[in-house]
Amino acid sequence: MIGNIAALLTTLSFLPQAFKVIKTKNTEGISLLMYAMFVLGVFLWSIYGYMIGDMAILVSNTITFILAIVVLCYKVHSIKKSSN
Amino acid sequence: MIGNIAALLTTLSFLPQAFKVIKTKNTEGISLLMYAMFVLGVFLWSIYGYMIGDMAILVSNTITFILAIVVLCYKVHSIKKSSN
Repeated sequence: MIGNIAALLTTLSFLPQAFKVIKTKNTEGISLLMYAMFVLGVFLWSIYGYMIGDMAILVSNTITFILAIVVLCYKVHSIKKSSN
Repeated sequence: MIGNIAALLTTLSFLPQAFKVIKTKNTEGISLLMYAMFVLGVFLWSIYGYMIGDMAILVSNTITFILAIVVLCYKVHSIKKSSN
């Protein structure tokens, strides 16, 4: 039970961050290195979940991966824009 | 092996974010709701890891909890400061 709630919270927590970045286009305080590492990490978690046949790990990390990629893309975009 | 690398990446990814927030004091693009949910989530993961006796889950989530709390505190502090 606690594990499911924990997974739900850590997975869905990236939803408000993705919304905020999409709405405000402001990624100033966000660390590019964090999201690069995190996106790679949850990608590997998804593969791991697939390999051991654990749908919970696969699904929760795939959702987090999609949300975190959104934030990462906005961060990369804003860095490119500011360097032009 | 993939699971350990994934855990390492997702855990340590919050280190550059904590450093960036401490250094720049800029939390503008960061979502308060995300970190509130995420901190609660990794806290529950730590409890879950303790309950099932899984040191990897306990240790990785405790580290993430500490790093994420740093970001959350800076975010709360900057909101309080801007509302004064």
